[in-house]
Amino acid sequence: MSCCLSITLSKSKMLSACMRQVVRRYHNCTGKRKYLSDMFYSPAKSKHKEEYSCKSHRLLLANDIIYPCHSGAYYLLPFGQRVLEKLTRVIDDELQAIGGQKISMPTLAPSKLWRKTERWNTPELFKLKDRAETDYCLGPTHEELITDYVRQLHPLSYKRLPLMLYQITRKFRDEMAPKYGLLRGREFEMKDMYTFDATEENARVTYEIVCNAYDKIFKRLNLPFVKVAGATGNIGGKLSHEYHLPADIGQDQLLICEKCDFGLNKELVGAGDDEFGKHCHLKEINGIEVGHAFLLGTKYSEVLDACFVDKDGNTQVTKMGCFGLGVTRIIQASVEVLSVDDNIRWPEVIAPYHVCIIPQKEGYMADKFFSMANDLYDKLDSLPNLHDEILLDDRTQLTVGKRIKKANEMGLPYIVVVGRKALEEIPLFEVIETSEKRTFFASAEQVIEHMKNIQTV
Amino acid sequence: MSCCLSITLSKSKMLSACMRQVVRRYHNCTGKRKYLSDMFYSPAKSKHKEEYSCKSHRLLLANDIIYPCHSGAYYLLPFGQRVLEKLTRVIDDELQAIGGQKISMPTLAPSKLWRKTERWNTPELFKLKDRAETDYCLGPTHEELITDYVRQLHPLSYKRLPLMLYQITRKFRDEMAPKYGLLRGREFEMKDMYTFDATEENARVTYEIVCNAYDKIFKRLNLPFVKVAGATGNIGGKLSHEYHLPADIGQDQLLICEKCDFGLNKELVGAGDDEFGKHCHLKEINGIEVGHAFLLGTKYSEVLDACFVDKDGNTQVTKMGCFGLGVTRIIQASVEVLSVDDNIRWPEVIAPYHVCIIPQKEGYMADKFFSMANDLYDKLDSLPNLHDEILLDDRTQLTVGKRIKKANEMGLPYIVVVGRKALEEIPLFEVIETSEKRTFFASAEQVIEHMKNIQTV
Repeated sequence: MSCCLSITLSKSKMLSACMRQVVRRYHNCTGKRKYLSDMFYSPAKSKHKEEYSCKSHRLLLANDIIYPCHSGAYYLLPFGQRVLEKLTRVIDDELQAIGGQKISMPTLAPSKLWRKTERWNTPELFKLKDRAETDYCLGPTHEELITDYVRQLHPLSYKRLPLMLYQITRKFRDEMAPKYGLLRGREFEMKDMYTFDATEENARVTYEIVCNAYDKIFKRLNLPFVKVAGATGNIGGKLSHEYHLPADIGQDQLLICEKCDFGLNKELVGAGDDEFGKHCHLKEINGIEVGHAFLLGTKYSEVLDACFVDKDGNTQVTKMGCFGLGVTRIIQASVEVLSVDDNIRWPEVIAPYHVCIIPQKEGYMADKFFSMANDLYDKLDSLPNLHDEILLDDRTQLTVGKRIKKANEMGLPYIVVVGRKALEEIPLFEVIETSEKRTFFASAEQVIEHMKNIQTV
Repeated sequence: MSCCLSITLSKSKMLSACMRQVVRRYHNCTGKRKYLSDMFYSPAKSKHKEEYSCKSHRLLLANDIIYPCHSGAYYLLPFGQRVLEKLTRVIDDELQAIGGQKISMPTLAPSKLWRKTERWNTPELFKLKDRAETDYCLGPTHEELITDYVRQLHPLSYKRLPLMLYQITRKFRDEMAPKYGLLRGREFEMKDMYTFDATEENARVTYEIVCNAYDKIFKRLNLPFVKVAGATGNIGGKLSHEYHLPADIGQDQLLICEKCDFGLNKELVGAGDDEFGKHCHLKEINGIEVGHAFLLGTKYSEVLDACFVDKDGNTQVTKMGCFGLGVTRIIQASVEVLSVDDNIRWPEVIAPYHVCIIPQKEGYMADKFFSMANDLYDKLDSLPNLHDEILLDDRTQLTVGKRIKKANEMGLPYIVVVGRKALEEIPLFEVIETSEKRTFFASAEQVIEHMKNIQTV
């Protein structure tokens, strides 16, 4: 850099207090450990004008998971972003295990395709023109784009079916009245899978396979979900199921059998099919819709000409399914149904961090506690399942009690306090399992033994 | 499911050929191994109308990495999606190592903020109105949104600075003439980081730290990059550097010193600063811009009122930096500069898969080769660095030669052929290192030994 305009670190000779922090990061002295004081959180007094509309909305705002930007649109803050990425990994795992292949499609969808499927006049579409006055919408779902793509694969052999393509991308809907935070926003992350089969019989098998993957996803998240027969609505098709988390604020009314696992959306009642209910004892509950499966048949593939070549060399129309999961919606709906009092409870596998270590501050022993906390941090972080899952709350200006309360509110599953008992001959740490409301003392080895099987993703 | 409308697998008694494949997946018989015949690829005859405009564009189209959707917008196909996710992880690693915190911001940005910063009339903005006739643009960058957010953190203590917030999200630009595939599209993935400091001196240190992280990212990708002094353009600010990959098709002209590592964008020549060049031997090259760093100073924070409280309790304006990386652009630019003849070469760490196993098909021994290939697959897949990095090309209707050619074209770094020598007393496999153009025979143990240190992400 002999003749260079660049600035270099060496030129900044006088290090201010702020700069020391920068340089500390630069030299990676603490870069490998996550100290809460280095991390993002809002100052207590920071204010936004948004009134929360339900418990989960309030908890997400209060714990710096989201922050309001404009009507129905949110900033996802660092902890929220981590939850989103973990949930994405759970979904990827289960969909790829059944042969799903992940892609991404453009956000801008040409009006031409949407006119063909007669969906261009959907009132919730955000529409815009480019410089050349061509019309587009911001895709709320992508049946048109994926079907038009499969059309271009012609000649597609029956041997290549089923095709199961999915994406996890931001979707848009111009809601008349956005509310409930991430539950009914105008921008949201959605997983949408589209399947293409040779026959309706095959499409029904694929449908069942994807529904089974959904069951696995919700079970892995330990969420109390119900699957009910649903209406086909604007998407259309032959058969549909919805996945709901039961909650008072849910905007769908569901009829659920108390004897078996049958249920249906109340919208369907009187729709002509009264076979259900003969053997069932139905009760009514409210649900937050978090997933939807549609057996589409040829509704889109016929109009958009997505075909395959059968074993006799004849061209036939593919039979489609489409399957949505409201990814950001699942995040908030989980908080709505799992949280206890004023404390967030996450599906454990997607908690933003799994362990929070809190060193006591007590006069001349403060350094000792802090050093033991760092030591435990490194041991836990070196477990394969807990790498990058440990936080150290070094805000020793706060009492241990206040820091425990905060970690509990944020829903971190394990809190480890490094306090007086850590000074005993065999140092003991206080372990708090927030979800089990259980507290016990354990040696470093016992803590590690206890935590090495925590499920993470 | 006694009184349920659901279909179940057991009801489909007669399994067609297509269905066997579905069911095979369902039972996870092969679900854990990636067979190329199960995976996405376009039929050879599938056609799109897009003319490629440069080598990398052609190679991405020919190898099913991308597929054109509409002007300047592409489908990212499964291999392309994998490359994108790996590149994302490399960037996350390096930015989080310097204290960067990942968030995501809305795509829709209110016009009000863009009018305040006098950027609302930028010709490349996609603009739209919602139902309530409120104006938004689709964010091409997010200085306005992030600065308005930091404003709301008031009172933000100087102790909390620097704040280094970033996102990796889809961005939009209404290019007059989109071309070169992902290099100049209208939708693209971009990493944008925004930093907030207490003083300009600190902001310069932060600037240097982020630039160092950029250097690490490009070095980890093994890309030949140059960093040059750049113009501040529409973004504005006090100091700017650009990261380029030198390539004939690059749209920027750069002046690079042959003696030292100084360089600048030719746009800057005559801009008043002629200190450079006194000691330099400048030569002109073309570059593809893949990253940009700006020291913004108070350009945005002044107008949008993003302040902090200093140690004396006085409110001051934060000093900002912003730092972009064209994520999808890096993918194609890498192919442009690394590829050899008609073969893609990826930065090895982000190759879509690392190993392709090809079993020979030879009469009665075909089953034996296939079973040995599966066995090797499982051994390699169980290495921590190679989990989910192995492909098995089971398309035995193609000769081994054709399959090697295809894997080489796709840029898979290692090809392992299970052929005649696998029948010897100590079975030997042919290993082809595509990047090194090197071929050798090795036992299963030697293959594992050789591959257990491959760097993956």
